[in-house]
Amino acid sequence: MLLLIPGPVTTRQAVRLAMLHDLAPWDNDFRHFMAGLRARIPPLAGVTEETHAALPLQGCGHFITEAAVRTFLPLGGKLLVPQTGAYADRMIRLAREAGRVPVPLAIAPDRPTEPAAVAAALAANPDITHVGLVYSETGTGVVHDAAAIGAVAREAGRRMILDAVSAFGALPLDLAAQPEIDAVVFTSNKCLEGLPGMGFAIARCDRLRDSAGNAGSWSFDLADVHAQGLRSGTGSFRFTPPAQVLAAFSVALDLYQSEGGQPARLARYRANARAFHGAMRSMGLEPCLADDVQGPVVVNVHAPDDPNWNLQRFVDLLKARGVLISNFYNTPRPSFRVGCIGAIAPADMLYAAHAMDAVLERMGIRNRRPAPGSN
Amino acid sequence: MLLLIPGPVTTRQAVRLAMLHDLAPWDNDFRHFMAGLRARIPPLAGVTEETHAALPLQGCGHFITEAAVRTFLPLGGKLLVPQTGAYADRMIRLAREAGRVPVPLAIAPDRPTEPAAVAAALAANPDITHVGLVYSETGTGVVHDAAAIGAVAREAGRRMILDAVSAFGALPLDLAAQPEIDAVVFTSNKCLEGLPGMGFAIARCDRLRDSAGNAGSWSFDLADVHAQGLRSGTGSFRFTPPAQVLAAFSVALDLYQSEGGQPARLARYRANARAFHGAMRSMGLEPCLADDVQGPVVVNVHAPDDPNWNLQRFVDLLKARGVLISNFYNTPRPSFRVGCIGAIAPADMLYAAHAMDAVLERMGIRNRRPAPGSN
Repeated sequence: MLLLIPGPVTTRQAVRLAMLHDLAPWDNDFRHFMAGLRARIPPLAGVTEETHAALPLQGCGHFITEAAVRTFLPLGGKLLVPQTGAYADRMIRLAREAGRVPVPLAIAPDRPTEPAAVAAALAANPDITHVGLVYSETGTGVVHDAAAIGAVAREAGRRMILDAVSAFGALPLDLAAQPEIDAVVFTSNKCLEGLPGMGFAIARCDRLRDSAGNAGSWSFDLADVHAQGLRSGTGSFRFTPPAQVLAAFSVALDLYQSEGGQPARLARYRANARAFHGAMRSMGLEPCLADDVQGPVVVNVHAPDDPNWNLQRFVDLLKARGVLISNFYNTPRPSFRVGCIGAIAPADMLYAAHAMDAVLERMGIRNRRPAPGSN
Repeated sequence: MLLLIPGPVTTRQAVRLAMLHDLAPWDNDFRHFMAGLRARIPPLAGVTEETHAALPLQGCGHFITEAAVRTFLPLGGKLLVPQTGAYADRMIRLAREAGRVPVPLAIAPDRPTEPAAVAAALAANPDITHVGLVYSETGTGVVHDAAAIGAVAREAGRRMILDAVSAFGALPLDLAAQPEIDAVVFTSNKCLEGLPGMGFAIARCDRLRDSAGNAGSWSFDLADVHAQGLRSGTGSFRFTPPAQVLAAFSVALDLYQSEGGQPARLARYRANARAFHGAMRSMGLEPCLADDVQGPVVVNVHAPDDPNWNLQRFVDLLKARGVLISNFYNTPRPSFRVGCIGAIAPADMLYAAHAMDAVLERMGIRNRRPAPGSN
């Protein structure tokens, strides 16, 4: 089964096989394993443990994002969030429910965030301390320019929290060149091709020390996660982690590095997205994004404007052919969403496109064009 | 390797093998699987989905405990916590950091909580709304009488949150007879013998509805977890779950039920604890608890009062013989902690005791008695 949902992603068997053992997370061997694993993570973003810490947190991407917002913004702190789509909306909601004050910034849904718009919003709101940016918006497939938005925040003397859940490991990121980033957050199961169950932040050690006491939640206090790691010396957890997921993640990192790291992964995902985007066009379907905006992670395709169209039926028939895509709409107008990430290659994307072609025929779809005004 | 730490526990191979597949948590098949899994959980505590909901939460026992405290106590709400040991201390800290007001109740460290002491504390503090009780205190091995403490809370018109992380599935629990319990919390990886990565609460549906808006954290809002489950109809998650851990948990529940459910599991763990407790005595070691207080989950044994004693060396030498125990102290006086839960039988406990005997010899321990005044 190809998982193109686009996360959790299709993984390699070696990754899953690593989960077959009972593991004791407080055992010294596991502590050393974790210390080694943590040390491998900051370099993925161009830094080392001298300046930045890799902070693991049990759970999902939402949890590590809430943890970063709570840790680096005090109660009542203001966070500017460009409204890139569904995942920016989540950051807005989680910040609000945590007693922080999100300031949404409306942007065009199918274009990257304009740095000038962020600069203007920061200038107009001097009490905003942070920008919260979704690097790759899984809702739309648009990649936002984290370096350019970060530069604007930096020049305005503000800080940034970067949600790189569907970007980290594939899209470039150099935290050494972006000192305004307090934390970048991601998970085990997207572009790093592990299994779900763990979130991670890479955060500045100096800012972690300054942020003690902000979180208002012991579970989500990344400053405490950091302090605990320092106390124990060898990468201990505060609470039981999903040890098997971590063992699998370590194998996933081995495979990531043997493939050639970020440039190689980005190249493969780009090739996946390009192959799929082109195949959709050649089949008479209309991707939601223009070529120059289409990111390598998610391709949304407008739903055909045909009375026989039914997303769930489309999904079910595709599944019978071994291709799994999301069965819900994530864009303002109906579209189906296809992930291009995971342990898959362009040939898999072409197979998926071929399966879609056959399924649309089977469904009796005559018009594959979107409803007028969809773009 | 025998994991006697006592959690995560030793699991059966069939449980681990269930993790070998890529899974898509929003797929309809997975939703139906989850709906079925959720429906199986309330009956483990004597109730059904008519009155109670099983609420899954990604992460560890601490997370689901914080979620229950946040959901059922508003900001500033007061929680009486009998200080049973390390896990009660955790509940106190998490409540305080979440802006609730824990009221610690000092009790004897080696005896069950006296219901009369709880009644007196509630009478003296009319603004306490909840009692937070650790059913089986992993720190000490003492089992507290959840039914009797609950009755006291009920008679005083108060409510209860029950931390059953190291008890659920083995110790008896009848939520139908304990309407004062807003939520009981537990995890996938203790007495139910699954793998770590998921927390669960069983909570009253009426109280979940009444508690909307309390949590101050979207991630930890069990009222929202419940509402989302109702909205989706078929057991959907709000955020990506560790799907492989859930697949393994389902197999663990199959094994639980085929073994004979709670009575059978309790009988096996009791036999484990009794075999180990007796073996310690016959080897000249002194368990921390009297026979009538010793619970079936954890046996703490006083560290020998001998200059050659060293916990880490003891743990390392045991590990070389295939027995893994905790390498930290969890009681006021030095003791080593041994779990009696997981997919293990009395023969395993006797093997562990035999290994300890050999290791103490190897370490040159001449005096196995505890330091004077340890009890």
